[in-house]
Amino acid sequence: MPMSNSDTSEEDLVIGIDAGGTEIKAGILRGGEIIALRRFPTERELGPDHSVAQVLNSALAMHQEFPSTHAIALVVPGVIDSKNGIEVFSENLLWENVPFCPELGRITGLPWGFGHDVRFAGVAEATFGSGKGYADSFFLSIGTGIAGAMIVDNQLIDNPYGGEIGHMNVHSGRQCACGVSGCLESIATGPSIYGYYAELAGIEKTADTPKFGAREVLSAAKNGDRHAQEAWGVATRSLGEALAAYVSILAPDLIILGGGVSNAGTDLVQPISEYLESRLTFQKRPRIALATLGDTAGMIGAGILARRSLAKHRESSL
Amino acid sequence: MPMSNSDTSEEDLVIGIDAGGTEIKAGILRGGEIIALRRFPTERELGPDHSVAQVLNSALAMHQEFPSTHAIALVVPGVIDSKNGIEVFSENLLWENVPFCPELGRITGLPWGFGHDVRFAGVAEATFGSGKGYADSFFLSIGTGIAGAMIVDNQLIDNPYGGEIGHMNVHSGRQCACGVSGCLESIATGPSIYGYYAELAGIEKTADTPKFGAREVLSAAKNGDRHAQEAWGVATRSLGEALAAYVSILAPDLIILGGGVSNAGTDLVQPISEYLESRLTFQKRPRIALATLGDTAGMIGAGILARRSLAKHRESSL
Repeated sequence: MPMSNSDTSEEDLVIGIDAGGTEIKAGILRGGEIIALRRFPTERELGPDHSVAQVLNSALAMHQEFPSTHAIALVVPGVIDSKNGIEVFSENLLWENVPFCPELGRITGLPWGFGHDVRFAGVAEATFGSGKGYADSFFLSIGTGIAGAMIVDNQLIDNPYGGEIGHMNVHSGRQCACGVSGCLESIATGPSIYGYYAELAGIEKTADTPKFGAREVLSAAKNGDRHAQEAWGVATRSLGEALAAYVSILAPDLIILGGGVSNAGTDLVQPISEYLESRLTFQKRPRIALATLGDTAGMIGAGILARRSLAKHRESSL
Repeated sequence: MPMSNSDTSEEDLVIGIDAGGTEIKAGILRGGEIIALRRFPTERELGPDHSVAQVLNSALAMHQEFPSTHAIALVVPGVIDSKNGIEVFSENLLWENVPFCPELGRITGLPWGFGHDVRFAGVAEATFGSGKGYADSFFLSIGTGIAGAMIVDNQLIDNPYGGEIGHMNVHSGRQCACGVSGCLESIATGPSIYGYYAELAGIEKTADTPKFGAREVLSAAKNGDRHAQEAWGVATRSLGEALAAYVSILAPDLIILGGGVSNAGTDLVQPISEYLESRLTFQKRPRIALATLGDTAGMIGAGILARRSLAKHRESSL
């Protein structure tokens, strides 16, 4: 699946939907351009049947509002069966074997595409964002979890079990939700950066704790809080270490940092770049850039998928 | 470049050459079958001009002995420009900007191919060896260095700077030849396994030291030498750690262990498998197998490259 932007369907309006744990972003897209954007609540606290219905209803609403759209695609978290349009499993949303796309096809009558949210956010960045013009890039999403999208020779590596760099052992000495200790996710996600800081500073958990994350830690670090500086330093060094491993293995020209924690901007890019400078000797040194499409990257990626399914549909109708 | 075995040129005889630091293996190949095999000394101690001449002369000798061959390919270590057939740099052989393949084409008149030795040993294993039938595999060569060949969706990732998993930080605490410390190569190559053992056991370097390697350490470990057990244990755990990172990122179905250290057989496979069992939770668990083509894997890979160049040549001659 090349990143090429030259589909004959480039001008057609399509529907792209990114279904996440908190909200569903639904867009009408022409190429990388967002013509319309609607946000619907996922309401996952009401259970998986409800959140699945929310996704399907958001699709139906978009199709009714914009009947001149020609294809639809959905991106979701978790393990997916992209060929059959089935969500195999999402721990976060408790979705299991949900035949999303056959349903989407039935209710809208449109050709459909199905993909993974982080991987297609990476495809969107590679096609329309920071990665434009790079044949080999790595999009790293650092948020409540850490996962990546690998673009190699202009193609996405679309392995349903791939990109889980968040579970590389960076010897953090901390327990990870996956069941073992030392993982990058145990020290460098928004919640775990705050968790380590709170532990160092002896801050007890309160009802507000879940709201705190990397932003609060970075702010405290800038105000001279040495525990916050330590937590931020360990997080960025660990991210650097995992990225150095990725660079040694896949040698990308560009690393794109996305996800909530990437809002830290140069405070994130600079220590990671410094780590890579110190660690890489003979290896190719990639450029480090921030993602530019923000929280709509996954939805824009869904639009790319929708156009691909449209192109395939037209080909097979010839 | 698919691993497919269905080239129309499958039946044609081709020349495959693997030029290494000690010897040059030159073979006449039909598919994965070795029809003839000649070994020539590289004689690198006589300097790069001499070793380059050795490679070209071995090619010429094979072509004169087997004039009915239809294509030739060469695989080499280091950084290569495969498109133009130029060795960019080999630290080991002191080769720099050697236009091997234009020369090979001139002296033999045959269509030529050019590739990296470890990567095409991996392609050979994926096509004719342990990896047959697997779409996603990783061939790890563990010898005097450590590098890998990544097969993703039946294609080799042929990045000239890729596969350098030997320089992943496994926190060995030991200096690596690349200039930083902690790399997998600093603790898990043949020489470094022996080096760490010798250090633990307080053995001083002698004129014989360079001859000792993983084989001697493993043998001592089996005889109850606790320093040898420690060195072998750290090496296999470190290999497991690097492979666990690879699995989290690229999720192969199969890992193939090759190179000199893989002669340890189950004494290598078992501790690595146990490490992966203990470390991987939700990830896909790959099968671990030993390479089956031995030290001719690179040469057989060169044969695959030769047949590709032949197929291309015939296509362009139509």
